[in-house]
Amino acid sequence: MAENNGLALEDMRIGQSAEAARVVEEADLDQFAKVSGDYNPVHMDEVYARSTPFRGRIVHGALVASHISGVLGNQLPGPGAIFLALNMRFFQPVRIGDEVLTRVTVKDIDIKARRLVMDCVCTVDGKVAMQAEAEVMVRKRRRKPVE
Amino acid sequence: MAENNGLALEDMRIGQSAEAARVVEEADLDQFAKVSGDYNPVHMDEVYARSTPFRGRIVHGALVASHISGVLGNQLPGPGAIFLALNMRFFQPVRIGDEVLTRVTVKDIDIKARRLVMDCVCTVDGKVAMQAEAEVMVRKRRRKPVE
Repeated sequence: MAENNGLALEDMRIGQSAEAARVVEEADLDQFAKVSGDYNPVHMDEVYARSTPFRGRIVHGALVASHISGVLGNQLPGPGAIFLALNMRFFQPVRIGDEVLTRVTVKDIDIKARRLVMDCVCTVDGKVAMQAEAEVMVRKRRRKPVE
Repeated sequence: MAENNGLALEDMRIGQSAEAARVVEEADLDQFAKVSGDYNPVHMDEVYARSTPFRGRIVHGALVASHISGVLGNQLPGPGAIFLALNMRFFQPVRIGDEVLTRVTVKDIDIKARRLVMDCVCTVDGKVAMQAEAEVMVRKRRRKPVE
């Protein structure tokens, strides 16, 4: 991975998993608003957000989703992996300051098509904030297999 | 909308649509990498990316997805709208400098559950880069209806 090479499909097995924890900072919402153009006040304006059923700012769902991109892109399968599809469902809002634990698990491997299906879940304090299924394309093996 | 009030469900109709164009800048990828933690070199390292079948850096899929968040959160239904689910499929990579046109269209409205389904499509030069279906929760009407 230090050499920018993620796992190849041949190195992976069903049930294999990886996880990462990230605390969502207020600055993350500002940066996400810039790149997405999403200035929805339920995310960006505390006064407005207090007037909603959420009673305060909540993190953009698509920002939480980006954590999945992080674990898939950095860890499993790692560098070179590309999203083909991502199906997400949101269960509870994430707040600024929350530590989001993102766990991805290999659900299915299709060697021939060079694709895999990953189960993804983001939790905060053990409660599921989001669940997703990702279909990922993985490059051909270039280096020695991982033991 | 200037008053931070998006459309209420009662103001919406099937087939209604909104769109926005955004050019993806290199700085967007840097910021997205920061908030997502996704430093996959196929997005961040031109030398590495040239060695892949993409022959150069491509934009994070989840960053393209964030444009949908932008159109839903700012325009239709606008402020106050919240993702319940988002199902995306990626068809072709987006490059730095590409202008992504994101169009969202109301597909279904469930007044009782206060939910709506939106068809979403991101195109570059008329070619579909991503298609998605979003399930969105919409707040109760607070202000006068839109004509």
